Amino acid sequence: MSAPRAVILLSGGLDSSTVLAAARAEGRECYALSVHYGQRHAAEIAAARRIAAALGAREHRLASVDLGQFGGSALTDPAIKVPETPSSEIPVTYVPARNTVLLALALAWAEVLAADEIHLGVNAVDYSGYPDCRPAFIEAFQQLAGLATKRGVEGQPLRLVTPLMQLSKAGIIALGHSLQLDYSLTVSCYQATDEGLACGRCDACRLRAEGFRQAGLADPTRYAA
Amino acid sequence: MSAPRAVILLSGGLDSSTVLAAARAEGRECYALSVHYGQRHAAEIAAARRIAAALGAREHRLASVDLGQFGGSALTDPAIKVPETPSSEIPVTYVPARNTVLLALALAWAEVLAADEIHLGVNAVDYSGYPDCRPAFIEAFQQLAGLATKRGVEGQPLRLVTPLMQLSKAGIIALGHSLQLDYSLTVSCYQATDEGLACGRCDACRLRAEGFRQAGLADPTRYAA
Repeated sequence: MSAPRAVILLSGGLDSSTVLAAARAEGRECYALSVHYGQRHAAEIAAARRIAAALGAREHRLASVDLGQFGGSALTDPAIKVPETPSSEIPVTYVPARNTVLLALALAWAEVLAADEIHLGVNAVDYSGYPDCRPAFIEAFQQLAGLATKRGVEGQPLRLVTPLMQLSKAGIIALGHSLQLDYSLTVSCYQATDEGLACGRCDACRLRAEGFRQAGLADPTRYAA
Repeated sequence: MSAPRAVILLSGGLDSSTVLAAARAEGRECYALSVHYGQRHAAEIAAARRIAAALGAREHRLASVDLGQFGGSALTDPAIKVPETPSSEIPVTYVPARNTVLLALALAWAEVLAADEIHLGVNAVDYSGYPDCRPAFIEAFQQLAGLATKRGVEGQPLRLVTPLMQLSKAGIIALGHSLQLDYSLTVSCYQATDEGLACGRCDACRLRAEGFRQAGLADPTRYAA
């Protein structure tokens, strides 16, 4: 039997890189998809290329879609400042419908590849309050995928795989560490420099640094200052 | 009370133009969204601009996403010939996950606009066998939209409006005609020339011509030969 074929949504950040490492360790034939959606942190895309190559993805594709033109998020609108203090509400770094768009693109490629699975690094624990990271959202997309595609109509719906859903950031880092993933290749910061140096102050940086601390591992992140 | 605000997916074809005309007639404040997804028929985009202006859309946006890079469809892959004879199977003009991608983009803009509705011209009668034109697909996306967005989390999910779902092509044309829609502005052909002239032979042309015949109306389509 041939290896299951999987499309992996790969941002170049810590979470999705761990997902790719886990999928490779489980013997998946991996097709990595990165999406440039107008986010400020283009450094992530460069990181995604490095990681796809380092982890032996079969192919790496980059799709572009201009969500920035719709505005509404600090990640795509330079006029909205990335917050550097925690908030209990849905934060301004939330990009409207982002995961729906990413999954739709993954679905398109998966259908053409006749892939069996789509893997993504959503997480319900440290998810910063984004609505489209919750299990109910993933289940609804799984349902949609079965109805949206030729493959689904023919009775073979794609499976959505979310290996990080119930892990803490420390748990994710421990998983990647056990798979020898080199986290210095990854970029999580919402406002990284073009060279991939992290600010150390945004939500993403704080969650990441705290994760390494709790996992009891050295933090290999390259910081700007 | 202010007018309901709607994002209208507008391809520039007969169906979506009728949807915009109907939404305007019902007093919606309309935001038209066209998506260039690598389709051959770029003439449709020019048509969409004309129609959005003629029908008084509040704004018209063009989003681009390269579904063509994934291949798998005669509409985006020049190596696959557009069929000129009917088929009982899902045809090669089917673009993998197209409606999922279009709706995801509409959802992103709708959320930023705080729109109440997304309107789209899918049709279960003359739908050419595309899986993502069926009522069950639309219901699944409606469900997803409620879970995917900030607005949904706050208890105000977007409504998906599909006024053409149960109409025949003749019924759609009769509806547009009653609303004084000038169908000579629209382009349906899968392989129209850059000037918007139709081939008269592809599935889309055949369904359209038959629709005018059955509606008992003159066909204003501009044909290439």
